[in-house]
Amino acid sequence: MKIEGKTYRTIWFENNTVKIIDQTKLPHQFLIKDLKNVKDAINAIKTMEVRGAPLIGATAAYGLVLSLIEKNDLSFLKKSSEDLISSRPTAINLKWAVDRMMKKLLGVNDKDILKIALDEAKSIVEEDINYCKSIGLNGLKIIKDIADKKKDTVNILTHCNAGWLATIDWGTATSPIYHAHQNGIKVHVWVDETRPRNQGANLTSYELNEEKISNTVITDNAGGILMQRGQVDMCIVGTDRTLSNGDVCNKVGTYLKALAAKDNNVPFYVALPSSTIDWEIKNHKKIPIEERNPEELSHIEGVDENNNIKKIRIYPQKSRSLNLAFDVTPAKLVTGLITEKGICEASEKGLKGLFK
Amino acid sequence: MKIEGKTYRTIWFENNTVKIIDQTKLPHQFLIKDLKNVKDAINAIKTMEVRGAPLIGATAAYGLVLSLIEKNDLSFLKKSSEDLISSRPTAINLKWAVDRMMKKLLGVNDKDILKIALDEAKSIVEEDINYCKSIGLNGLKIIKDIADKKKDTVNILTHCNAGWLATIDWGTATSPIYHAHQNGIKVHVWVDETRPRNQGANLTSYELNEEKISNTVITDNAGGILMQRGQVDMCIVGTDRTLSNGDVCNKVGTYLKALAAKDNNVPFYVALPSSTIDWEIKNHKKIPIEERNPEELSHIEGVDENNNIKKIRIYPQKSRSLNLAFDVTPAKLVTGLITEKGICEASEKGLKGLFK
Repeated sequence: MKIEGKTYRTIWFENNTVKIIDQTKLPHQFLIKDLKNVKDAINAIKTMEVRGAPLIGATAAYGLVLSLIEKNDLSFLKKSSEDLISSRPTAINLKWAVDRMMKKLLGVNDKDILKIALDEAKSIVEEDINYCKSIGLNGLKIIKDIADKKKDTVNILTHCNAGWLATIDWGTATSPIYHAHQNGIKVHVWVDETRPRNQGANLTSYELNEEKISNTVITDNAGGILMQRGQVDMCIVGTDRTLSNGDVCNKVGTYLKALAAKDNNVPFYVALPSSTIDWEIKNHKKIPIEERNPEELSHIEGVDENNNIKKIRIYPQKSRSLNLAFDVTPAKLVTGLITEKGICEASEKGLKGLFK
Repeated sequence: MKIEGKTYRTIWFENNTVKIIDQTKLPHQFLIKDLKNVKDAINAIKTMEVRGAPLIGATAAYGLVLSLIEKNDLSFLKKSSEDLISSRPTAINLKWAVDRMMKKLLGVNDKDILKIALDEAKSIVEEDINYCKSIGLNGLKIIKDIADKKKDTVNILTHCNAGWLATIDWGTATSPIYHAHQNGIKVHVWVDETRPRNQGANLTSYELNEEKISNTVITDNAGGILMQRGQVDMCIVGTDRTLSNGDVCNKVGTYLKALAAKDNNVPFYVALPSSTIDWEIKNHKKIPIEERNPEELSHIEGVDENNNIKKIRIYPQKSRSLNLAFDVTPAKLVTGLITEKGICEASEKGLKGLFK
């Protein structure tokens, strides 16, 4: 998709280097960063220079390529794969991508292994792009139906960033929105700022601005009153892990919006590539919920009046804080799952109907 | 209550001047400000140097005193009363306090009017303190019941600031907490930061710190996952306007927490003095919901590494935002209303049982 009119992907491979957009610098600075070894890749995931379940998966896949470039050695590769998997706990794609790479690479001879790794990483990337495109086309139908009935702008609420910046291109939750816009349907997006890291404001609003899609940033508190007033026609969010029973683990606060949507009869959709489905865990209480640095709450970065980036403390000095990064939206609150294979009910039956 | 060990109220009258704590400077600076005329009082309400329904009411009452000191003239007083009422739209106490003052003052002779005004303003203030104390004693029973059953620290979630800083002393939602603490019951408070103005972090956590009550600031997004994990025993919030049917208008985001509480069987209480009851409006859709400056979202104030207060822009330059300040929690989600006269069901029957 576009930034300042130029087309980008979030990650690409060039001259034995992995290139990423450093997302911790957005929206105040657009910076392309080089990952030169597996340590750089792990660091990029940990510090959230790359984030979003699909992009984390792709970065991990390329991380193994970098590991092989650094040292063509099986035990080093295995160590790299373990370190990558443990770099962030909640997104399932991370493990999925590493497992897929390792399955392909184990037993392959030294001479071919790098090329095979690179091909597999590229195929993970291309597959994700195609999946996101299909999610967009499937979700487009829902938006079109609302537009046909309403004969006015469709107001869509989204939480956090499940945009193209969370994937390689198109995004998951945003893909139906981009497709609707390209098909001449009038859409307006309510963007939850998504504290503490404000990825809604920093990334989703930013990427929608750059694609010239009408959007308004709101606090995470505001979705309820907007729904009470009838100003939200539908919600679409992404997910970091979807259980086979349809429970959806996503950025903290998603659950609260789903509750409000239910209470106000607003359809609530979750967009996901099948790589985010966890077929193993049966109970959402078993999902590891990442607890991040409390400084992400008490301190915040922005630009001062001279456009210099500044970090300030916003909480009282004596206050402590807790930073849980995800919550679980029970399947009962989800109207449907928009996947690359079609839309299904948020249930084992629904998911198995499409994928097994 | 205490700040740095010294006891304060949020507003007092001294040498023909009204003294307030400038709450826009908290938590980074503790500053006492003089209001010298009615314009100062209106400005203090508008810019939220004073905020919280009961404190707004008290400031308006003192505003009329200042109006009389400035010019002992009936038409000036009437103009002052209108300007005060329209300084903020949602909190009902503002109109309540002004109406009460004007009822007392109309028809009184010029010589006595100032003394009568001052006495009435002082009686509004003393009444509020007594009401808050009674709310505390009534709410204390609920906390004590939970503590007796749980035999462990009681975890209470609150949204925004309905603390002593929102009233004159004790607070509404915090009063049961202060009373529990003073009675040796172990409590811990989850404080929603309450975007966009962060009054939870800036004021509630600040005042709890100063009273040495254990508290943790969380994002507005986090209440749901904490309740899902069983880490919240009850919620208590304040209100800016309570309809006679029990619907509660309070700081935006309150509704989302009430939904999560219902979904997780967590009791959800609203603490209020009877001055916040609106006996007129029957339908919550008729409540004027204040829309404030969008800059309150896109810009934020804090302190830099040298402890200097700095304001920074946190949103993308091209992004616009919307700032709705309140939402409505339907009575069906409210476990009970804690008032100065006792606890009642959130319904016309409940409220009339106590107040009519």
